[in-house]
Amino acid sequence: MAPTVEGGDAALLPEFPRGPLDTYRARASFSWKELALFTEGEDMLRFKKTIFSALENDPLFARSPGAHLSLEKYRELNFLRCKRIFEYDFLSAGDVFESPLRVSALIQCLGMYDWSLAAKYLLHTLIFGSAVFSSGSERHFTYIQKIFSMEIFGCFALTELSHGSNTKAIRTTAHYSPATEEFIIHSPDFEAAKFWVGNMGKTATHAVVFAQLHVPGGQCHGLHPFIIQIRDPKTLLPMPGVMVGDIGRKLGQNGLDNGFAVFHKVRVPRQSLLNRMGDVTPEGTYVSPFKDARQRFGASLGSLSWGRVTIMGMAVANLKLAVSIAVRFSATRRQFGPTEDEEIPVLEYQTQQWRLLPYLAAAYVLDHVSKSLFLDLVELQRGLAAGDRSARQAELGREIHALASAGKALASWTAQQGIQECREACGGHGYLAINRLGVLRDDNDPNCTYEGDNNVLLQQTSNYLLGLRACRVQDGACFRSPLKSVDFLDSYPGILDQRFEVSSVADCLDSAVALAAYKWLVCYLLRETHEKFNQEKRSGSDDFEARNNCQVFHGRPLALAFMELTVLQRFHEHVHRPCVPPSLRAVLGRLSALYALWSLNCHVGLLYRAERRRSCPGGRDRSSR
Amino acid sequence: MAPTVEGGDAALLPEFPRGPLDTYRARASFSWKELALFTEGEDMLRFKKTIFSALENDPLFARSPGAHLSLEKYRELNFLRCKRIFEYDFLSAGDVFESPLRVSALIQCLGMYDWSLAAKYLLHTLIFGSAVFSSGSERHFTYIQKIFSMEIFGCFALTELSHGSNTKAIRTTAHYSPATEEFIIHSPDFEAAKFWVGNMGKTATHAVVFAQLHVPGGQCHGLHPFIIQIRDPKTLLPMPGVMVGDIGRKLGQNGLDNGFAVFHKVRVPRQSLLNRMGDVTPEGTYVSPFKDARQRFGASLGSLSWGRVTIMGMAVANLKLAVSIAVRFSATRRQFGPTEDEEIPVLEYQTQQWRLLPYLAAAYVLDHVSKSLFLDLVELQRGLAAGDRSARQAELGREIHALASAGKALASWTAQQGIQECREACGGHGYLAINRLGVLRDDNDPNCTYEGDNNVLLQQTSNYLLGLRACRVQDGACFRSPLKSVDFLDSYPGILDQRFEVSSVADCLDSAVALAAYKWLVCYLLRETHEKFNQEKRSGSDDFEARNNCQVFHGRPLALAFMELTVLQRFHEHVHRPCVPPSLRAVLGRLSALYALWSLNCHVGLLYRAERRRSCPGGRDRSSR
Repeated sequence: MAPTVEGGDAALLPEFPRGPLDTYRARASFSWKELALFTEGEDMLRFKKTIFSALENDPLFARSPGAHLSLEKYRELNFLRCKRIFEYDFLSAGDVFESPLRVSALIQCLGMYDWSLAAKYLLHTLIFGSAVFSSGSERHFTYIQKIFSMEIFGCFALTELSHGSNTKAIRTTAHYSPATEEFIIHSPDFEAAKFWVGNMGKTATHAVVFAQLHVPGGQCHGLHPFIIQIRDPKTLLPMPGVMVGDIGRKLGQNGLDNGFAVFHKVRVPRQSLLNRMGDVTPEGTYVSPFKDARQRFGASLGSLSWGRVTIMGMAVANLKLAVSIAVRFSATRRQFGPTEDEEIPVLEYQTQQWRLLPYLAAAYVLDHVSKSLFLDLVELQRGLAAGDRSARQAELGREIHALASAGKALASWTAQQGIQECREACGGHGYLAINRLGVLRDDNDPNCTYEGDNNVLLQQTSNYLLGLRACRVQDGACFRSPLKSVDFLDSYPGILDQRFEVSSVADCLDSAVALAAYKWLVCYLLRETHEKFNQEKRSGSDDFEARNNCQVFHGRPLALAFMELTVLQRFHEHVHRPCVPPSLRAVLGRLSALYALWSLNCHVGLLYRAERRRSCPGGRDRSSR
Repeated sequence: MAPTVEGGDAALLPEFPRGPLDTYRARASFSWKELALFTEGEDMLRFKKTIFSALENDPLFARSPGAHLSLEKYRELNFLRCKRIFEYDFLSAGDVFESPLRVSALIQCLGMYDWSLAAKYLLHTLIFGSAVFSSGSERHFTYIQKIFSMEIFGCFALTELSHGSNTKAIRTTAHYSPATEEFIIHSPDFEAAKFWVGNMGKTATHAVVFAQLHVPGGQCHGLHPFIIQIRDPKTLLPMPGVMVGDIGRKLGQNGLDNGFAVFHKVRVPRQSLLNRMGDVTPEGTYVSPFKDARQRFGASLGSLSWGRVTIMGMAVANLKLAVSIAVRFSATRRQFGPTEDEEIPVLEYQTQQWRLLPYLAAAYVLDHVSKSLFLDLVELQRGLAAGDRSARQAELGREIHALASAGKALASWTAQQGIQECREACGGHGYLAINRLGVLRDDNDPNCTYEGDNNVLLQQTSNYLLGLRACRVQDGACFRSPLKSVDFLDSYPGILDQRFEVSSVADCLDSAVALAAYKWLVCYLLRETHEKFNQEKRSGSDDFEARNNCQVFHGRPLALAFMELTVLQRFHEHVHRPCVPPSLRAVLGRLSALYALWSLNCHVGLLYRAERRRSCPGGRDRSSR
């Protein structure tokens, strides 16, 4: 049963203070409290309220509008706030397993306050801490308690100055020396310096450092994680052989101290290797539960997906804030009107609605999908933890990887463009720092590039779809995936024969119409991408080149359209469940349809072109090449 | 004759220092020096070099990468730098009239160093100073000398807290009192506070304040400019009755002190009225050379165009910087490759080229057009100065207003999106403040909203085109404009009958092909917008509502397509002149074609839709409504 307003607590959702928005609020076709309960659930509303109330009432979190902190001061304050978050103990260890959505809710609440704080907390506990927990073994669990008591403070050092996306090309080395039972961690040159590492700039005492593991005799076993002390926890002075520092001011998130580290033949005990994926015996023999490096790499996809799905949630939080600011401003700002004496709220203009309301719909749609993907990932993680090595588990990992990659791109770009639109839609006032749209834009910006540049990530998703298609053609396998996101492709010849038969605007306001168009579009793009790839190969390109040359006009729109379809499908099903309160069905249906048509509209050129090709079967239309 | 490299001075265009870009530079199909000479001309190159050399060699302009200035310190430094610019005396008074492009070149050079400096200088001299000069009369010319000696420091106070776009609704009042021969300047409430005024926050001693002029008996004669002292030049303390201050931190341009002012019955002499457009006699009678307020307003359009064309140049300067940074980075950054051992520069990827190179082309195209529009504006201004009240002069004013409005929108958005693309295309390194893409984005951002929000400005341009169409229908007038930007519309029934007949990719690489498509598109959109407007009227909308409801899907794309056509037409003609050096024709042709196809591609859905409608004459296709 859906929760009801009556079941809610007045203190949980108090009335808004009276003000200039009253007129619009009185005109709402639905109860906002009911919508909030439906969207979040009472438990989650309570959890978030606990966090926000704690921050609101603690002077350490007071904001001083207009005051400007120096970089040093801001970073110091951010560290103290991070420490205080641990003291509040919002999350029990049990929560992480039993109510995993609370983990992402906490990150989002902290981020809605300040992303520097959320990032600092996240990097220490969920990135550094999880890496130790999931890549290490029992001998490393002593670190876990120290992490939660902040006796040590951690960071995750993968990226180097010259390598980010291509992690396999990371060049820090770890040579094992049996004589002393130590690894020698070394940066061959400054381009191999660890770089961009959050928390490393000023505050981290320990780092999970990824390095190429070499055993005696010279064989390299690829990238492995090591836990390495980089600073003295008492003095914060660097450890011998470690040159560590801050990389300086960024476009945003300046409360976070991103840093660099260069290792000069730093000797660490053999036990520093986080040895879940592979270990070295005291004598120097490499042992691994995985048969080959490729399989080991595949097993790490799950952890990449965590980062990407988390970023989806971050982007959605930013979009929510920006849209709220801009819509509220537009409802109160009056400019021009039908007569010289009467000015109307700018929200009444078609242009303003067209600029803002699709982003409002996107916030609802993407919020739901980022949560539902998060829960899928929890399922994956539970399977991993239970030692499930079934084909379904592997397939689930690949599907989530494909969805998380494109989902991160879609959510971060939607937020980035939405914030920019909100900022411009607020005119000059949007350019004033105190109105916060600048900070949101600057803090959201890295979501577009970290954990993989969006354009690179989309290739992961298009490759996944092309791979499935190849399996079907070669092995006669069905299009089937554990989360069913690709199952519709199984009837793709039939889908491609369908035509758009809707004849009225009213009919288009059901998102099922856009869903059908999206299915058609994805089938079409999959076929086109496959053909383009083959054509590239026939013209003599190798696989690498052929893939790259398919991306801009084929693989990229394929990945985006597939993700938009998935997002829309999930939201459509969500708002059409029987348990949806009848009083909310209309507004949720409108949000779904608005998002659907707005997204689909970006592909309208493709839809027309495809139709034109169909009308000249066997041939290409003139303008296409 | 075009200048030649041999004619240039080696010191003017020295070789680049050797470095990692050498490989790509050696592969260029043209001489960059020749291109620079063609694009700028030797005189302009020299002028810019003078400015850059002065800044490079003056410690006051030294940058301290990584250092962070407090807001106060930055604003103080910016003021000192502005003062120093006057001492350098880069522009003689004669230059302003004889080499007007030098004025915009100076602004752009200062902006390429720091937009806060450019804005501070521009606001004092060209906005405040020009307003006094062009709106005042001889009795105000004593101010001019004080402006250039910086004895007084000025600002231009039009916008209020609650009114920006709708300037007619400005609410500051100026009541004339014959008893004391004074105006009483008054802000009725805080929403009528002057707001956003650049230079007003800390440093301005004088302001041109716009207020509604009331004469005894209560009649209001509309908005008029007054020159008002707001601070004591010695102490910078506010004058009695003036509450003036800083509006705080912005998203960018923080070296500029934007401010607010509230006037409490401030008495100023009658002579404070800048009386070119209208005056009040000592007895309190209003006199004006213009018959009515509408005509007076029309005469001020020229000054609005100055702001907008200047902004085009600013946006182009930002785009040039961003593209240079991103393309150079992409040429040296290597990531992935055909084999594990070989990594290739990211510039080699189709995706990276697709992301960046259209913006490179846009920088060349928009640079040329912003300069050519600037020169058109100079012609307009010369006519005004010579007292030309011909119909052609009025028509030129309207045409330039339409082009400057849409041109400002197109250039500022292209720069904004281009900078964001550059930032993302540089991955993490693009997010590091020292790499400057953040500052460029933040400093360019207001170009999208000030001097009129872009979406609002586009309506000026679509209204201009609709107005011409109405004249043609009602009065049988031809489509003719002094700059010929609309002349092609005269044969619009014929253009609409044309079909796209190009059959090869190679043919499309001539921008004439895209030009023809654009002409078709503008004719089509003009007809559709006109029909939509009539349909809205028939459904009972008043003019205001009908215009607003035509904007998103009709007037807006009409204005943008018309501007893109104009921009492309001008660049196409520019690079196809007989005097273009033969060695540059190929590269200039490619820039023109790339910009043309890339821009046109945004309208591809419309082109397909229109074609489909044509194939079902007399009716609408199903999906269009």
